[in-house]
Amino acid sequence: MTEKNTLLGAYKQTDYQVSGHGGRNIQVLKDALENVDGELESDMYGSGKIIEEFQYKMAHYLGKESAVFFPSGTMAQQIALRIWCDDKGVKKVAYHPLCHLEIHEQDGLKELHHIETVLLADKDRIIQLDDVVNMKEDIACLLLELPQREIGGQLPDYQTLEDISAYCRDHKIKLHLDGARLFEILPYYQKSATEVCGLFDSVYISVYKGIGGIAGAILAGGKDFTEKSKVWKRRHGGDLISLYPYIVSADYYFDQREDKMNQYYEDAKELAGFYNQCHAVSTTPNVPVSNMFHVHFDGAKEDIESVLISIYKATGIGLTGNIRGTKNKGCYYEVSMGDKYSAIPKESLKKVFQMLDEKLLKNHKQKRYDQ
Amino acid sequence: MTEKNTLLGAYKQTDYQVSGHGGRNIQVLKDALENVDGELESDMYGSGKIIEEFQYKMAHYLGKESAVFFPSGTMAQQIALRIWCDDKGVKKVAYHPLCHLEIHEQDGLKELHHIETVLLADKDRIIQLDDVVNMKEDIACLLLELPQREIGGQLPDYQTLEDISAYCRDHKIKLHLDGARLFEILPYYQKSATEVCGLFDSVYISVYKGIGGIAGAILAGGKDFTEKSKVWKRRHGGDLISLYPYIVSADYYFDQREDKMNQYYEDAKELAGFYNQCHAVSTTPNVPVSNMFHVHFDGAKEDIESVLISIYKATGIGLTGNIRGTKNKGCYYEVSMGDKYSAIPKESLKKVFQMLDEKLLKNHKQKRYDQ
Repeated sequence: MTEKNTLLGAYKQTDYQVSGHGGRNIQVLKDALENVDGELESDMYGSGKIIEEFQYKMAHYLGKESAVFFPSGTMAQQIALRIWCDDKGVKKVAYHPLCHLEIHEQDGLKELHHIETVLLADKDRIIQLDDVVNMKEDIACLLLELPQREIGGQLPDYQTLEDISAYCRDHKIKLHLDGARLFEILPYYQKSATEVCGLFDSVYISVYKGIGGIAGAILAGGKDFTEKSKVWKRRHGGDLISLYPYIVSADYYFDQREDKMNQYYEDAKELAGFYNQCHAVSTTPNVPVSNMFHVHFDGAKEDIESVLISIYKATGIGLTGNIRGTKNKGCYYEVSMGDKYSAIPKESLKKVFQMLDEKLLKNHKQKRYDQ
Repeated sequence: MTEKNTLLGAYKQTDYQVSGHGGRNIQVLKDALENVDGELESDMYGSGKIIEEFQYKMAHYLGKESAVFFPSGTMAQQIALRIWCDDKGVKKVAYHPLCHLEIHEQDGLKELHHIETVLLADKDRIIQLDDVVNMKEDIACLLLELPQREIGGQLPDYQTLEDISAYCRDHKIKLHLDGARLFEILPYYQKSATEVCGLFDSVYISVYKGIGGIAGAILAGGKDFTEKSKVWKRRHGGDLISLYPYIVSADYYFDQREDKMNQYYEDAKELAGFYNQCHAVSTTPNVPVSNMFHVHFDGAKEDIESVLISIYKATGIGLTGNIRGTKNKGCYYEVSMGDKYSAIPKESLKKVFQMLDEKLLKNHKQKRYDQ
């Protein structure tokens, strides 16, 4: 099959895309650099104006004493958990079964840091206060991911966060925020980053999700914590002579998009509404609480791909480039709202979902007829 | 003291600098990106045209089956040693006492990988065949750094390399090349990268030393080795969604400078000659074997700084921005030749060294008079 006939190929051919900020191409970096003075000196192994000013800006934004720029969240979070484990002398932490560290990092936390993990809550739901209170193990740190990405970006209510934070403080458990999508949840909670981060001892944020930078992460907390994190950053091989390509672009897109998070959230709710009006489609969460959600189809991956490709070709609008099959013969994909959505003519979008509904209904009738 | 009156401040004010390729500023990245099509897609977690093509190019250049781009040499080399240790089931490696892993990485190899180290040779000389043959410990891997940077960039003769390689092969010891400055030593050996790398099981090279890129490293070896290195790269947090800012610039400057290494080597020999004609100055090595050497002064750091600052102001030519004191009341600095040297009018340069000689002689007489 040539790429043109695949879902991804057809998606790339569309005039409009519903998700994201646009292609991850080199123009993203060129745009960020365009108005930066070429004479500006590189950071040097964690020092210099570029890195120090951005770290200061992020520490202030997050309401933390200090912040450190890391090349990746994988590195930043393993290091955060390691520091808290060493501090307490307990090499055990707790997090959700679908935590990034558990499923996407080749077990770096265990292989490099020899830290044991306690998995809280079931895979298909978020961690609640009871899960924490009923935990038998003595742990150094609890990691909460807000929103819980692998289940569509779900969130606990704010009271639950406050209760878990208070419980951890009382029980000498450090609370770490996997805030890869922290910016994106603030409109739902109606809280500032400082307020949310105030509930946590340490915070990681990503600069290339909602912000749309190129790569990189911030790890923030007290000065003692961040100083230790710099030592581990060097040990991991993350203390690069120059991180400025990521920092300059993070700073540029932060300034462009930080105040657009409410728009992305509103767009996510609208788009999820369109999906939920279609036959044999549902979103998780039903009403999004951030800029993201998952779209689930009661139909085989191949069938849904055919449906989508035909819609892309007919309308010039792309919904996704990638679908994953599920165990129960359905399929799903992730949607993250960004700058692209607002460019799509509303009438054309409505036509897309009218077509989707009709085609899925037809597929469904055919399926019943075949049985 | 304002920066203007420091050695670094005075150095930055000069019209010509003897060392390097020029300032590490953002223009370095802008230049590399200028003719790259903005539509070119980012690499994605180690996949995609940009990263795969450069890895292929470097594997071919080094004569290895496969190559992987890493954000840093610190990460690449720890991982290389870990793989060889795991393969043999022996968590012990050998290297020089001034190896980068021993003195610049906050003990990452020990803290993250729990690998023991055997230090071969004395600090002030390079590893010879006898050091390897007389080693009592059973090790998984021997790391050789060519040239040995911390002692001015010294090299063993090529026969010694071949003998060590043969010995290691016979004794089931993997041989790893710290080739941070591999390009820079090829003119002295009169060998290709493929020939030198053929003596080693695995090879690391840096893309921001002689090549002058922004950051990043290549780790090369057999396919089985590099596949394992990708798993560890993810564990370390080095498998970034986008590494292209480093890759594009590495590729750009590799093409610009790979064939200039002979010029840098010739320039290093010429410049070291100028230094060695001066009173109370010597270089290590006496005759350079790469683009680098160390300049040692028989005089206190502060005195030499004053001398250099006055010369910079008088001639507009800068020799170094940074001097380090030594235990025996002398001082030294490192010189790495690059693009900047050829721009300096030879007559002006001779005047610099004439002044340096006169001032050092005067200082020396004053010192004897004071005693």
